[in-house]
Amino acid sequence: MAVTTDSPSTRARAAARTLATLGRGAKDAALEQIALAIERDSAAIVEANAEDLAAARASGQSSALLDRLTLDSERVLALCDAVRAVAALDDPVGQVVTGWRLPNGLDVQKVRVPLGVLLVVYEARPNVTVDVASLCLKSGNACLLRGSTSARATNAALLRCVRDGLKAAGLPEDAVVPLEASREELAAIVADPSACDVVIPRGGEALKKFLLEHARVPVLVAAGGNCHVYLHADADPAKALPIVINAKTQRPGVCNACETLLVHRDALPLLGPIGAELAEHGVELRADAEAAAALGAPSLAADEDDWATEFLDLVLAVRTVGSVEEAVEHIERYSTGHSEAIVTESIAAADAFVLGISSACVYVNASTRFTDGGEFGFGAEIGNSTARLHARGPVGLADITTTKYVVRGAGQIRA
Amino acid sequence: MAVTTDSPSTRARAAARTLATLGRGAKDAALEQIALAIERDSAAIVEANAEDLAAARASGQSSALLDRLTLDSERVLALCDAVRAVAALDDPVGQVVTGWRLPNGLDVQKVRVPLGVLLVVYEARPNVTVDVASLCLKSGNACLLRGSTSARATNAALLRCVRDGLKAAGLPEDAVVPLEASREELAAIVADPSACDVVIPRGGEALKKFLLEHARVPVLVAAGGNCHVYLHADADPAKALPIVINAKTQRPGVCNACETLLVHRDALPLLGPIGAELAEHGVELRADAEAAAALGAPSLAADEDDWATEFLDLVLAVRTVGSVEEAVEHIERYSTGHSEAIVTESIAAADAFVLGISSACVYVNASTRFTDGGEFGFGAEIGNSTARLHARGPVGLADITTTKYVVRGAGQIRA
Repeated sequence: MAVTTDSPSTRARAAARTLATLGRGAKDAALEQIALAIERDSAAIVEANAEDLAAARASGQSSALLDRLTLDSERVLALCDAVRAVAALDDPVGQVVTGWRLPNGLDVQKVRVPLGVLLVVYEARPNVTVDVASLCLKSGNACLLRGSTSARATNAALLRCVRDGLKAAGLPEDAVVPLEASREELAAIVADPSACDVVIPRGGEALKKFLLEHARVPVLVAAGGNCHVYLHADADPAKALPIVINAKTQRPGVCNACETLLVHRDALPLLGPIGAELAEHGVELRADAEAAAALGAPSLAADEDDWATEFLDLVLAVRTVGSVEEAVEHIERYSTGHSEAIVTESIAAADAFVLGISSACVYVNASTRFTDGGEFGFGAEIGNSTARLHARGPVGLADITTTKYVVRGAGQIRA
Repeated sequence: MAVTTDSPSTRARAAARTLATLGRGAKDAALEQIALAIERDSAAIVEANAEDLAAARASGQSSALLDRLTLDSERVLALCDAVRAVAALDDPVGQVVTGWRLPNGLDVQKVRVPLGVLLVVYEARPNVTVDVASLCLKSGNACLLRGSTSARATNAALLRCVRDGLKAAGLPEDAVVPLEASREELAAIVADPSACDVVIPRGGEALKKFLLEHARVPVLVAAGGNCHVYLHADADPAKALPIVINAKTQRPGVCNACETLLVHRDALPLLGPIGAELAEHGVELRADAEAAAALGAPSLAADEDDWATEFLDLVLAVRTVGSVEEAVEHIERYSTGHSEAIVTESIAAADAFVLGISSACVYVNASTRFTDGGEFGFGAEIGNSTARLHARGPVGLADITTTKYVVRGAGQIRA
């Protein structure tokens, strides 16, 4: 055992034992106490945040980072709403996923239980501190939270509220443990299954890569989103245009934005109005020759790299294909397995696309931008996963639990 | 991409694309063709097996290994039955796990789909070749099979039948690809997510350790089984004795056998008859002082090591505890998370045990020996898992699939 008696991991593990036995009432009461503590300390939180902001400004951080870092009093109150929204969600723990009676009379139940101790490593945005703490508490998991140094004062103020709330509700404060760990210490923790059960990175590619490289415990992580929209031969123009514009431009810097538009040769005429509107939105186009001609708007010549790139920007690759099979082929080759959409009025084409695409989320006549826990109606999400095992797509409360089999008998033995 | 164009991985991946689109009928027809091919080649398989057995005998292998290696004509026919039993199982692929309609009219479905390419590394028993191939085919997964050199000729004969059957049914032979790989090559494959999606080791601790050490793709694996039976204060003697005897002696070398017996102080009188019967079965006892006195039968003094050891033999550690909480405490400390049982007539004690134990399988008044895909009614199992993520307990067909979200709309875009 690499963990010492009073290490953050040991404290979290002890708390996890208690959390696993709690009913919904006790957890929801603690969430309410956390919301109250945040309301109470609102001014102190904003003050701590001002300290972080000043330091970030002094060190020349980007305005994007400054915005992500900022917690004004309005955002603090929104945090309280978020905590109460989590309290309002169903408790996944104790749900009987399935159950049956065996011929020998044994009653088998597959029951949802907490995972144990989650390590969440996140960057900049201090609201993650409260979101993750709430979701872990609701699902009966203890958590180790390692935020970024740029949000240190804000996170400390928020964690004080979280732990005050837990204490006020009579629950172990160590259900949520702040983790001050260097990169080296972090590497050691994620290599030690006795320290935590799952790691969830919420941040950039460098962070994910670092954790994947060092982890010996499972990492729940989304690959980037090289997402596709495919306009089939019979795409309805009234659906095609808004879906493409929305998927590309509504928020180009996120993982569920569209990066490559595939167009059936027979649907090339649709590209005229789409190209014009994309150009109006300032989207840079990189197209093959056929698509370039149809787009009207200026475009660069696309190459292999463009198919493989997640631009996360107002850039769109456009490629012509001859069939839904060719579209599927392209996507299965270049996609990161996040979200893909087909626009078609044909049941056969939709079915072929849905069957052929192996990505976590497949859309028919809808924007890829819906891949999101909030949009899916989960109420909150802890991230998004493109992994094949365990959770895929938006990761909701139930996805940060596991199951155990409970088998009740009357003395049965195996023959 | 580390895989070359015609590498086993590339071939399996191409086949996986086809397999993912197949309905149950096509897969069941191929399973029948495989059973027919094995029946047809029965004599050749037994002959190939004789070759392996001769080599094993010549190299001085143990009689246990020789038995595991042996395939006589009766066992070959049992293999055909096993293939047909898999065909008779429900197809997990395409199952809608859950689904709902969003306020904006989007229809969300969570649909079961194959994982992709499974690598199964196994030792000695050649029946695993056919079992795993059948289960993978039924679940729409392609597989890379790496058997042991001691079963090389037998495995080759069986794989010929499997691939003949696939071909006869018009399916890609590369749905099942034999993998001849050195330890170094194996390490490279499991480190490459483009080569396979999941690794399943079926063999000893050294094999698991090797794969866990080198894998960058998920490993579905069972930790050893340090399993417990706890006799509560009010255990029914008529249940306690057969459960302890069954859990310890029915097959002591397997992972779901009991290794430590915990006894409530008030239940110590039960140990007299249990100790006598264990002694009759030749079980060596290692007990604390109180338990030793109650057992009657000769015992060694138990120490810390005994609580932590998976004996896999006719050895049983026995410890006295003062409460169900103390039993839970002991188990949560020493267990490998496999299977634990309580014997009690008290609802409160049973509930406390079930809630407090985090192992994959928790039994009330039944033997731990039931942790098994066959016993659970899965029809077949691909292994057993003590992991927290994805599959826990016996790993059935549905556990070697994943899900994707299919979202159908009428042109919805995100606001």
